[in-house]
Amino acid sequence: MARVRRRSLTHLDSEGRPRMVDVGPKRPTRRRAVAEGWIRMSPHLLRAIRENRVEKGSVLTVAEVAGILAAKRTAEWIPLCHPLPLDHVDVRLTLDDDFPGVRVEVETSLVARTGVEMEALVGASAALLTVYDMCKSLDREMEIGPVRLLEKAGGRSGVWRRPGLEGRPKRKG
Amino acid sequence: MARVRRRSLTHLDSEGRPRMVDVGPKRPTRRRAVAEGWIRMSPHLLRAIRENRVEKGSVLTVAEVAGILAAKRTAEWIPLCHPLPLDHVDVRLTLDDDFPGVRVEVETSLVARTGVEMEALVGASAALLTVYDMCKSLDREMEIGPVRLLEKAGGRSGVWRRPGLEGRPKRKG
Amino acid sequence: MARVRRRSLTHLDSEGRPRMVDVGPKRPTRRRAVAEGWIRMSPHLLRAIRENRVEKGSVLTVAEVAGILAAKRTAEWIPLCHPLPLDHVDVRLTLDDDFPGVRVEVETSLVARTGVEMEALVGASAALLTVYDMCKSLDREMEIGPVRLLEKAGGRSGVWRRPGLEGRPKRKG
Amino acid sequence: MARVRRRSLTHLDSEGRPRMVDVGPKRPTRRRAVAEGWIRMSPHLLRAIRENRVEKGSVLTVAEVAGILAAKRTAEWIPLCHPLPLDHVDVRLTLDDDFPGVRVEVETSLVARTGVEMEALVGASAALLTVYDMCKSLDREMEIGPVRLLEKAGGRSGVWRRPGLEGRPKRKG
Amino acid sequence: MARVRRRSLTHLDSEGRPRMVDVGPKRPTRRRAVAEGWIRMSPHLLRAIRENRVEKGSVLTVAEVAGILAAKRTAEWIPLCHPLPLDHVDVRLTLDDDFPGVRVEVETSLVARTGVEMEALVGASAALLTVYDMCKSLDREMEIGPVRLLEKAGGRSGVWRRPGLEGRPKRKG
Amino acid sequence: MARVRRRSLTHLDSEGRPRMVDVGPKRPTRRRAVAEGWIRMSPHLLRAIRENRVEKGSVLTVAEVAGILAAKRTAEWIPLCHPLPLDHVDVRLTLDDDFPGVRVEVETSLVARTGVEMEALVGASAALLTVYDMCKSLDREMEIGPVRLLEKAGGRSGVWRRPGLEGRPKRKG
Repeated sequence: MARVRRRSLTHLDSEGRPRMVDVGPKRPTRRRAVAEGWIRMSPHLLRAIRENRVEKGSVLTVAEVAGILAAKRTAEWIPLCHPLPLDHVDVRLTLDDDFPGVRVEVETSLVARTGVEMEALVGASAALLTVYDMCKSLDREMEIGPVRLLEKAGGRSGVWRRPGLEGRPKRKG
Repeated sequence: MARVRRRSLTHLDSEGRPRMVDVGPKRPTRRRAVAEGWIRMSPHLLRAIRENRVEKGSVLTVAEVAGILAAKRTAEWIPLCHPLPLDHVDVRLTLDDDFPGVRVEVETSLVARTGVEMEALVGASAALLTVYDMCKSLDREMEIGPVRLLEKAGGRSGVWRRPGLEGRPKRKG
Repeated sequence: MARVRRRSLTHLDSEGRPRMVDVGPKRPTRRRAVAEGWIRMSPHLLRAIRENRVEKGSVLTVAEVAGILAAKRTAEWIPLCHPLPLDHVDVRLTLDDDFPGVRVEVETSLVARTGVEMEALVGASAALLTVYDMCKSLDREMEIGPVRLLEKAGGRSGVWRRPGLEGRPKRKG
Repeated sequence: MARVRRRSLTHLDSEGRPRMVDVGPKRPTRRRAVAEGWIRMSPHLLRAIRENRVEKGSVLTVAEVAGILAAKRTAEWIPLCHPLPLDHVDVRLTLDDDFPGVRVEVETSLVARTGVEMEALVGASAALLTVYDMCKSLDREMEIGPVRLLEKAGGRSGVWRRPGLEGRPKRKG
Repeated sequence: MARVRRRSLTHLDSEGRPRMVDVGPKRPTRRRAVAEGWIRMSPHLLRAIRENRVEKGSVLTVAEVAGILAAKRTAEWIPLCHPLPLDHVDVRLTLDDDFPGVRVEVETSLVARTGVEMEALVGASAALLTVYDMCKSLDREMEIGPVRLLEKAGGRSGVWRRPGLEGRPKRKG
Repeated sequence: MARVRRRSLTHLDSEGRPRMVDVGPKRPTRRRAVAEGWIRMSPHLLRAIRENRVEKGSVLTVAEVAGILAAKRTAEWIPLCHPLPLDHVDVRLTLDDDFPGVRVEVETSLVARTGVEMEALVGASAALLTVYDMCKSLDREMEIGPVRLLEKAGGRSGVWRRPGLEGRPKRKG
């Protein structure tokens, strides 16, 4: 009876049935999104990546390819995302000695009826997971995150920029 | 010339060519991994999820399905992962008022020649990205992370548990 | 010689070579399709779904997610379908005590050069197959069908509605 | 609160969280399944298929390929299915003047810890949907169904055969 | 250090980071491409294909289906390709006694911001690989190639036709 | 009638129905395959790849990643291939001034009931297509081929090596 009960609890739109928002009524406009992500690791591992001494190969390039491929297939990973024919995906990984770890920045853009934030966030996550995979034999304790949206442009809501971005995320703990 | 140069810099295995580790010589054993992930959000949004008032539907169930599906296809997203016929994937999301946000825990297991950490981490990431997608109209500032391995068992290296796990991750900043 | 023979038997278009129709000359217009599908089951199982006592989880929500995901990837399942960037997929499952079983209705829409019937029918099939999968330990004799198109709008042929729809399909036998 | 409420309604296993059954404890044995499916159509269309006069090409062969491909990827369409390395898929379509329509029979087999019913049912559905797609310009009123399991062998429960199979399904209505 | 070094070696665009070209600034126009491919085989095998005596089935039709399906998913195979909603794919295999072997010609078209050459080349390759797979029990020494672009139209660069095409490729050696 | 006619022409197994060979009766053994492929290009382009001056990025690494990913998904591109859990894929690209062009060598291995030749050939093709894609703005006349099997080991037929391999393929014409 759970399903019926939920229906009576709340209004129609929140009955719990998964819903892909209908973007048909929206106008196609140029959309753009930027996301960033981080993976924290030991300074020892960071040095190995920089010196290309990771057994599985050139970490940054492989992770960038993984990020691009994943961004293009976002609608397969994320159930309620619309399939979007991306015009552009840019995935850029950089090493950060202070974090310490690797930072990824992903920019996506296209002309469409809905935004491309998810594509940017998915690309960032896939790139970081690939870094983890390639380096896990050296450091199992790596932590992925934060992964977050930095910017979003296009569509009804115009340009949004993440407030209060303080450079690199603080160390936990 | 970069490629040639790298070759002379380092030993053969780290020339930068992406390499899928040959697991043929390993024995198939029962493998198990547990990963966790977090997404930080406003208390307002957390309440909306709890009360099932998110327009896109029942957030936790949809995210759990997304996590299971993604874990099964890990070798498609992560270039150097082996395709693995998983025996089991368990994706469990819980709401956490103190974080505040949603925590996901993923457990994977199978009998294979290589470990299932990546499947657990990919499942956790996909579940959290799905939470982001379903809730982004209410809160764009959500942050995914940390996503990290908690436990790994099976294979040559036996059982590993993440040291110093202090319950929920500290607030950044 | 079969191939050559077929060529001489019939006119060029029906030589048997699979052919994806060229939709280039058509104008993009708003297209819409509605399909329905049924799965017949024991009253006992229907009750278990209603009371959420199926071991694999919340049947209706998981099946709805499966339907949405499959509809988006129709061109991968169905060889001669065009890849279409759907604007909208709606998958709605309901329990029917009289059939007895579960009914799914799928609505799809987009602006494109070709129709979205297949997306609706694929979404319906995937949702029903998911119901079967989640419930098969309780009832192996479930039957999927009929799955059929109810409505189609947009494009040259305008609006079509299935004639003589009598509510729920008759019991076989 | 729906989620919490459901938990108190029923025992732990049926809290509604989607669950991929853990097949790790099961022994790998040879598994086999047979499913059938039907698509009802006008005698006119059936004749066109038989005479290979369908514009999109050789309907039966294309549908058989679609069935095989879909069966292999069952775990992508059906969320809680295990990925299974199939040893064999056989998809056979035949024309039936009395139904009238096309019948598909799919047999799947492998050595695994879980059964292959879903692979057989998915293969049957994809083959029938492909028939629909290739013929829909001639007859929109085709109906897919019944799609059902005929036989299942291997594993703890031994051999099961569908009781009371009366040849071709009765005409509805 | 390889990565940093490369940066100083060359200008920004060729630092080695994989880059999906931004096609956003381009205008959508009708694009078209034609590719061809060949597979060389023994006259004995060619005869078996012609007489439909290959154990795995009707080689040409299955290969044509494979070519169409692969062309539609080009952006999954080829990392830096844009996902493109194809309007049309035509895959045509013919037997050639003089080569001897099978020739495939693939034509692709759509309205987009970027060309469809890769789709045509991918379709040709997948069709030829499928021929190899279906026939390999009879002749392991088959050779695929040349696979090459014949024509490309649309976009800034207008119509291009491969110069000096001499009918069938010369015998190697 | 083509279909029926074919049936009477030949014995049951060659009626033209696509058939995935049943590998169930075979014993799992260690299998291995090596394939090679070539892409011919202008010396000018070859130099640009060597000096990493290709706009789309580091050609060899991206192509190697593409080859690995495609090999793992061979059963999706090639309709009658069995899904195989690869233990190992090695994709190695080298520049060849004399051809002139790029050579790829792919080695695949696993323990299974059927061989891994197709995985090696698919990996080689995808890597070469990726080279084409990344370089096509500099040279549209590149030609892919030959792509061919060099070696195959394991299973009933033991070790096979391609006879008469003369180093690099001769120039056409």
